[in-house]
Amino acid sequence: MQRYFLKQTKIIDGGFELSSEVAHHFVTVMRAQVGDLAEFVLDDGVEVVAQLIKVDGKRAWVQVDHEITTSSELPVNVTLACGVPKGEKAQLIVQKATELGVDKIIFFEAERSISRWHSDRRQKKIEKLVKVARGAAEQSHRTVIPQIVYQTDLLQAVNEAAAEHQIVAWEESAKQGEQSNLSRVFHQMQNGDTLLAVIGPEGGLTEDEIKRLTDRDVIPAGLGPRILRTETAPLYLLAAISYYFELEK
Amino acid sequence: MQRYFLKQTKIIDGGFELSSEVAHHFVTVMRAQVGDLAEFVLDDGVEVVAQLIKVDGKRAWVQVDHEITTSSELPVNVTLACGVPKGEKAQLIVQKATELGVDKIIFFEAERSISRWHSDRRQKKIEKLVKVARGAAEQSHRTVIPQIVYQTDLLQAVNEAAAEHQIVAWEESAKQGEQSNLSRVFHQMQNGDTLLAVIGPEGGLTEDEIKRLTDRDVIPAGLGPRILRTETAPLYLLAAISYYFELEK
Repeated sequence: MQRYFLKQTKIIDGGFELSSEVAHHFVTVMRAQVGDLAEFVLDDGVEVVAQLIKVDGKRAWVQVDHEITTSSELPVNVTLACGVPKGEKAQLIVQKATELGVDKIIFFEAERSISRWHSDRRQKKIEKLVKVARGAAEQSHRTVIPQIVYQTDLLQAVNEAAAEHQIVAWEESAKQGEQSNLSRVFHQMQNGDTLLAVIGPEGGLTEDEIKRLTDRDVIPAGLGPRILRTETAPLYLLAAISYYFELEK
Repeated sequence: MQRYFLKQTKIIDGGFELSSEVAHHFVTVMRAQVGDLAEFVLDDGVEVVAQLIKVDGKRAWVQVDHEITTSSELPVNVTLACGVPKGEKAQLIVQKATELGVDKIIFFEAERSISRWHSDRRQKKIEKLVKVARGAAEQSHRTVIPQIVYQTDLLQAVNEAAAEHQIVAWEESAKQGEQSNLSRVFHQMQNGDTLLAVIGPEGGLTEDEIKRLTDRDVIPAGLGPRILRTETAPLYLLAAISYYFELEK
């Protein structure tokens, strides 16, 4: 079933009018007929299944069928801080991390980041990524659209996250056969806790960046013995979190 | 360090000549100088670090520095059977699944597969994917290049895998809140065991396909409460396997 996020919408007398954007997609693109159902996430996080009851030109109204009470959100809050990657990889990270349940993605300028988002184009890039996140959140039936943030500095990214648990994915850690830090952090976490995971760009983080992070109590953790690309590491981490907190625990 | 796979190469007197393809990449593309090191995986799975000792025109020789004894392979063997996806998604699946440790990927014609690989173009498609797998195996420092296979039929794909443990990722299973089958299968598995994971194309598997699979003792398993795209599901599964078998156990 199609899912839509609706801003500034409240249920009045058991129904609501769709925003023009959502009305266009549901009625014109998806060719919904009166009687058809879709899922809607309203401003306050309320999720409902509602039925199309009236179309008038470009306007459309639905009536609530029932509220959705099962949650599709991860039981822990995950913030990714990713060194700015090359090309279209930021989009891939945002799309896949959203599907996998991330709460917030901070892109930061790492020492080895080849790309920088210059301040005049930054807002446009973020807006495009927010759109990708929104589409992925609708597609994966989430309640939350992840936030996308840009920081020029690594430690500002760490501050921005303000997380109770902090790890950095570190290739050298994996190479040296370290394989218990990730699991140790998971075991310490409670439902509702916030985890920050820092991930380097192509070429990884520098020794100096790792030191600045460990000085701030960010724990280096290997993600298995294979070397993962910069866009694969966040997906590995989120899938491991989902498995541990949603399926294994 | 760069890693290369070398076919039909044996160590003689502590060294070997590089194939023309590898010599070209190492010496011309990567501009290696005499004395520079790289990793080489030989036919019999032996992995060594070796030093460039001589270049003569397009030919190049290396001397073994030391053998690599730590393994980067998953302790269990995973075969994916993926319903043929649209467009370039097969490449994304092959690249990412290789990084995450897959052994074999079977693409099969699912009822809802929009693409089919016609028999005259099939070999070319597979060769291209083998190249992607080889590149990803080198990049992620694996010992094995995953096999890529095409099957027109779902049950032929299951037979081809001949696995001890069999699951099918099923969206409805996730929607109904089932969340223990994947973990139950993992707990039953021993190191060295083979797992087949069937994953539907865009639009998922049909009820009939699920029935044909469960009749063959393939267990439906949810991959968490969010709806994953066809190319995201295999990555979720492999990351969960790596976490469980390499980091958690």
